[in-house]
Amino acid sequence: MRIIIIGFGKLGKGLCRAFIQKAGFLRDTYGLIPRVVAVVDEFGAVANEKGLNPTKLLKVADSFGTVARYKGGKRGKLAIKVIDEVSADLVFELTPTDIHTGEPGISHIKRAMQAGKHVITSNKGPLVVAFGELDLLAKTQGVEFRYSASVGGAVPVIGLAKKLLVGNEIKEIRGVLNGTTNYILTRMSAEGVPQDTVIREAQELGIAEKDPTLDINGIDTACKITIIANSLLGMDAKLRDVKVVGIRRINPDAMKLAQEAGQTIKLIGVARRGYLEVCPKLVPLGHPLAVGGTLNAVTFELDLAREISITGFGAGPMETTSSLLGDLIDIHCTLGA
Amino acid sequence: MRIIIIGFGKLGKGLCRAFIQKAGFLRDTYGLIPRVVAVVDEFGAVANEKGLNPTKLLKVADSFGTVARYKGGKRGKLAIKVIDEVSADLVFELTPTDIHTGEPGISHIKRAMQAGKHVITSNKGPLVVAFGELDLLAKTQGVEFRYSASVGGAVPVIGLAKKLLVGNEIKEIRGVLNGTTNYILTRMSAEGVPQDTVIREAQELGIAEKDPTLDINGIDTACKITIIANSLLGMDAKLRDVKVVGIRRINPDAMKLAQEAGQTIKLIGVARRGYLEVCPKLVPLGHPLAVGGTLNAVTFELDLAREISITGFGAGPMETTSSLLGDLIDIHCTLGA
Repeated sequence: MRIIIIGFGKLGKGLCRAFIQKAGFLRDTYGLIPRVVAVVDEFGAVANEKGLNPTKLLKVADSFGTVARYKGGKRGKLAIKVIDEVSADLVFELTPTDIHTGEPGISHIKRAMQAGKHVITSNKGPLVVAFGELDLLAKTQGVEFRYSASVGGAVPVIGLAKKLLVGNEIKEIRGVLNGTTNYILTRMSAEGVPQDTVIREAQELGIAEKDPTLDINGIDTACKITIIANSLLGMDAKLRDVKVVGIRRINPDAMKLAQEAGQTIKLIGVARRGYLEVCPKLVPLGHPLAVGGTLNAVTFELDLAREISITGFGAGPMETTSSLLGDLIDIHCTLGA
Repeated sequence: MRIIIIGFGKLGKGLCRAFIQKAGFLRDTYGLIPRVVAVVDEFGAVANEKGLNPTKLLKVADSFGTVARYKGGKRGKLAIKVIDEVSADLVFELTPTDIHTGEPGISHIKRAMQAGKHVITSNKGPLVVAFGELDLLAKTQGVEFRYSASVGGAVPVIGLAKKLLVGNEIKEIRGVLNGTTNYILTRMSAEGVPQDTVIREAQELGIAEKDPTLDINGIDTACKITIIANSLLGMDAKLRDVKVVGIRRINPDAMKLAQEAGQTIKLIGVARRGYLEVCPKLVPLGHPLAVGGTLNAVTFELDLAREISITGFGAGPMETTSSLLGDLIDIHCTLGA
């Protein structure tokens, strides 16, 4: 399979590393031979239809900060040109998320689809700004479109519903979808310390970003619940359709009261057909959503199975590679079937 | 799809009920029209290649205790005869589990496969006695063989690994796979009461069976961990290959010590390539395996995603129908692809 990678940060590099480490496994198990024919980063690009050497790509990018220094590479904003002109089967769109415009992800994804290329993305922006349009374009162009990595990192939330809970009607989806806030709430609960203290320590540990506003105020969770609703409940919701309350007002006293009642407080995203919400909620200890640390967890309320929950790491380049690779194998097998 | 149901207890009836309730959904969503052409129970059978009426089947079975009283039905041990002689695409083998002989499940499954019929089963017996043989027979006969309902009830443990964690190497699988013992341990932990008291109350509530020995001594969990190892780790293990310790010796003192250390005690099945074990183990509170009540939970240790866990109800006819129906839709889509 001939692959273009747009965005060569931690995720793009993690994917490349997996292609190296798992070459034998992918070939022997699925007959899948990923051939990277182009890589674009923020400073430039390199393309070779015979295939680029993934080990060399990583080395060049790490040494010089751009793949433009790979033999034959060029500097400049080259994503659209590469997507249009390089022969390939599939584009990985792994650029950073812009939740307001969805760009440059939307343009990349549209051009790829218009060029008849399948698309896998981890980018939440395009999915909260233009889900319906992109989903329709994929269908009319007859290409595959996957975005498992955009929700839950390594946790196959969307695949679980689409491939395994198939006999069930989904009544509601509830999720702990942001590892940073879950870490903060877990430590507040375990140690009774104020939120600001935990946030500062989380920043020092690299668990929270320098500006953790989008996590703390619930917007990141709102993005994910929007994507879940769009892909699993047949909605075409935008971010503004979600009623959002963050964790800012949760203090140690509230945590203590919850604990005394055998509960804990989690930031929960809720999706029902026509109703989307993000809000701190009480969760009984022992319930699958009461997971600690940076874990993510999603519970599906179903007519037959009643409740099925899935839990795992919602971030991290290696963990997220699990979802990117899962999507790639899925498309490969779908096309081969 | 023409379907034979062997075994018409709670599961068979639950499946029939789902066929009635979900007829429109299955047809519109998957183009699947399940036509029940024969049903066999312990007293007799009825067959009609034009299709039996599921509502009438349920009514007759509930009124007379056997489908033999359905128009055209016959009394006697008719399973093999029906499997051999009735034209059908697929057999549901839903008879009770015999973990020592695997019968009559093994014979039913073999004859169905030899007759070119796909097989879906919930029966653990055949899978712990003759997994390798049945798996091979399905392959040589070119038929599909699914057994999601045999492990975890509604929880799609096997499907998760086979369909969604596909880019990962599975290093280890750990699971809370028995709802009865999980209920007992959860109540011992929450209330500090002795095991015998909880067992008695669980029996009164219908959560524990009259003779809960196979649950308490870990054998039921051992069956499930054997099936998981066989289907996901490429083993051909038998029940005797599992090192088993039950929960008999767990007392309120042990529970209290665990709690003081922020842990709880769960009966855990463990499968690594070449090593199978069932044993009570400490699990940290907040870990996905620390689920309460009658829930089941399974954690996969993986090279990329690190840990993915899935949780849900491990028993109940409606819940288990979720897995039976999931297998049916999966086979239907596999054949149609």
